[in-house]
Amino acid sequence: MPEGVEPVPGGSVSSAPGFLAAGVACGLKPSGALDIGVLASAGPAVSALVDTVNAMPSAPVVRNRQIDCTALRGVVVNAGSANAATGSPGLEDAHLMAGRAAAALGLEPGQVAVSSTGTIGDRLDLDRVLPGIDAAVAALGPDGGADFTRAICTTDRAVKGGAFRIPLSVGAVTLGVAAKGAGMLSPRMATMLAYVATDAAVGADALARATAAAAARSFNRISVDGQMSPSDTLLVLANGAGPPLAGRDLERFADALAAACRWLAVQMVKDGEGAEHAVRLVVREAADPAEAEAVARAIADSPLVKTAAFGQDPNWGRIAQAAGQALAGREGPEPRLRVAVDGHPVPGDEAVEVLARPEYDMEVALGRGAAEAELWWCDLTHAYVTLNAEYHT
Amino acid sequence: MPEGVEPVPGGSVSSAPGFLAAGVACGLKPSGALDIGVLASAGPAVSALVDTVNAMPSAPVVRNRQIDCTALRGVVVNAGSANAATGSPGLEDAHLMAGRAAAALGLEPGQVAVSSTGTIGDRLDLDRVLPGIDAAVAALGPDGGADFTRAICTTDRAVKGGAFRIPLSVGAVTLGVAAKGAGMLSPRMATMLAYVATDAAVGADALARATAAAAARSFNRISVDGQMSPSDTLLVLANGAGPPLAGRDLERFADALAAACRWLAVQMVKDGEGAEHAVRLVVREAADPAEAEAVARAIADSPLVKTAAFGQDPNWGRIAQAAGQALAGREGPEPRLRVAVDGHPVPGDEAVEVLARPEYDMEVALGRGAAEAELWWCDLTHAYVTLNAEYHT
Repeated sequence: MPEGVEPVPGGSVSSAPGFLAAGVACGLKPSGALDIGVLASAGPAVSALVDTVNAMPSAPVVRNRQIDCTALRGVVVNAGSANAATGSPGLEDAHLMAGRAAAALGLEPGQVAVSSTGTIGDRLDLDRVLPGIDAAVAALGPDGGADFTRAICTTDRAVKGGAFRIPLSVGAVTLGVAAKGAGMLSPRMATMLAYVATDAAVGADALARATAAAAARSFNRISVDGQMSPSDTLLVLANGAGPPLAGRDLERFADALAAACRWLAVQMVKDGEGAEHAVRLVVREAADPAEAEAVARAIADSPLVKTAAFGQDPNWGRIAQAAGQALAGREGPEPRLRVAVDGHPVPGDEAVEVLARPEYDMEVALGRGAAEAELWWCDLTHAYVTLNAEYHT
Repeated sequence: MPEGVEPVPGGSVSSAPGFLAAGVACGLKPSGALDIGVLASAGPAVSALVDTVNAMPSAPVVRNRQIDCTALRGVVVNAGSANAATGSPGLEDAHLMAGRAAAALGLEPGQVAVSSTGTIGDRLDLDRVLPGIDAAVAALGPDGGADFTRAICTTDRAVKGGAFRIPLSVGAVTLGVAAKGAGMLSPRMATMLAYVATDAAVGADALARATAAAAARSFNRISVDGQMSPSDTLLVLANGAGPPLAGRDLERFADALAAACRWLAVQMVKDGEGAEHAVRLVVREAADPAEAEAVARAIADSPLVKTAAFGQDPNWGRIAQAAGQALAGREGPEPRLRVAVDGHPVPGDEAVEVLARPEYDMEVALGRGAAEAELWWCDLTHAYVTLNAEYHT
């Protein structure tokens, strides 16, 4: 976190003044767990939304692209079914969800975003979802953020949310944050689902710039399994209940927004499906940024590197193989690979101890230039195979 | 196989007249299994060699690039250590291996190719390898092809080799073939290690063209885990003991060579590390060949698609997700995805039965054009994770 930015004890996505949230169960999750969430600003707000580049986006993503997402007042989310690859009927369902939430909130449909997460390819059960939306709106309150955050989870083992207080020259503002995501997680423009609610008073353009920059520095820097979801969405709502921001304050706000998004993103990797180890990879000395990115993705997404991490095996050869694959056909000096984990060169006996840690740093230097890329990834375990083979997620 | 081409009962890589082979154990494999192989033509031969595009090729690949590979007489191969990512000392070791084999065979070093397969990043134990080469050359015989084929295996469960008889207008010629490969298998120019020995009399240029075409239609169309090896090598030796080929006979020979390589390649997928299902994927109706290829690779290498195949789950949504990821940013009509397995549309109940089969076809139509691509792939199982996490392969 940037200097001075502090977590709010017991904070949630609805901790900023003027925000309300709720999470209820409508029966989409067979377990009976919370599965519908609503987050709303009590008054007008500006907003920014970033979504997936997947070429077959989910129905809610398509629907949100049909409205102006710079002045949203709230969002309705269901878990249990992603409403993705559902065609025109699915798009109609997404509109019906947004319309029902807007009506219950006393808003226009165009003021409410919609998200769905869960199984791809199945229609939503609107007989459950629509009454669930009514129940969620009836339950809205300033303390509902924790339930909202639980309601949006699917295969997540850990709930990912909280709030941060940002002291600025004009007074303090609050950032409430919530996200879900553990698998099918390799965002390129945003992430699975992440929501930020703040009382900061910022213009829509400034918020859009800060949101895009935050996504680039956070969710776009993680990969659980190299698989980009069709549902990825990051939504930031700013209701202006706090002081207007400008100049240096706006920069500090943007930095805190990026740091909070990064905090959520790293939690997603730590909670990656079946993961036992989270690794912060930095690829250095690449010929250019695209090469650094390609090498980082090749290492992070290699099932051989990922199973070696699970086995706590300092398998330098597999890192070299993946880097060499990513460098195939690229011009430039012959690569001279150097690998280190938490500062210990690999291969090297001392590294074995590091590899047992739940989190460690890995640095891969290519000896070809000055570009670098950072990527968070996790290991490939039996639990990942079980989760994705035995259950129709 | 093309019409008229028949397997030779009990055939091996040394079945063509004029070829000798052997496989012996020198102690590189802890199990004591065969680990050094030599294949040689008794007389002059022409040859063609295709190797990896990995940017950090193994020492044997680098060494073979330093000699003229159009008139090779033989090859020496060890398993247990890949001599990859071993720098200048490793390159020297590869030259010493080739030199020792050439001396024992009474040839010049430049007439012998060298390959190594096994762990990446470790130096070869030449104290075992060099005497092993002498022992293998001493054991050479026309019936040694089966031992050669066993000696080049690493994590392979199945031995991959045999021979084919090609009837031509000028008389019949024989193709002996051998290959290894089960993991780190996603060749782009050749494959792990594959050897073909034939008595066909063809020129070096014609053989080079036929070999490149065969690799493109066989080894380059498979993926076990999306991981391109730094050792990939396909070597074809033709000693001209049979009749000279021209015109239509040359075409028929090239077709049979491609079919034999494809036969080996498909065996690699069926023997993929931990694999229980081998899938022949055809992506149709892509906007262009590059798009068809990208979508096929994205589906074949998705850990979510691969674990669903393991779980025999007709998970259409994950196929759509992977295709959508591969299509991200591409121009053209909106994709209209249709999936079928062995002719049954998915989703569909009848498909569940198909998914239990050890082999099936999967067809994915994109509705964007007329290009297509074919790729063989296999599922991701607990056995893959165990193999690659518990053992330092």
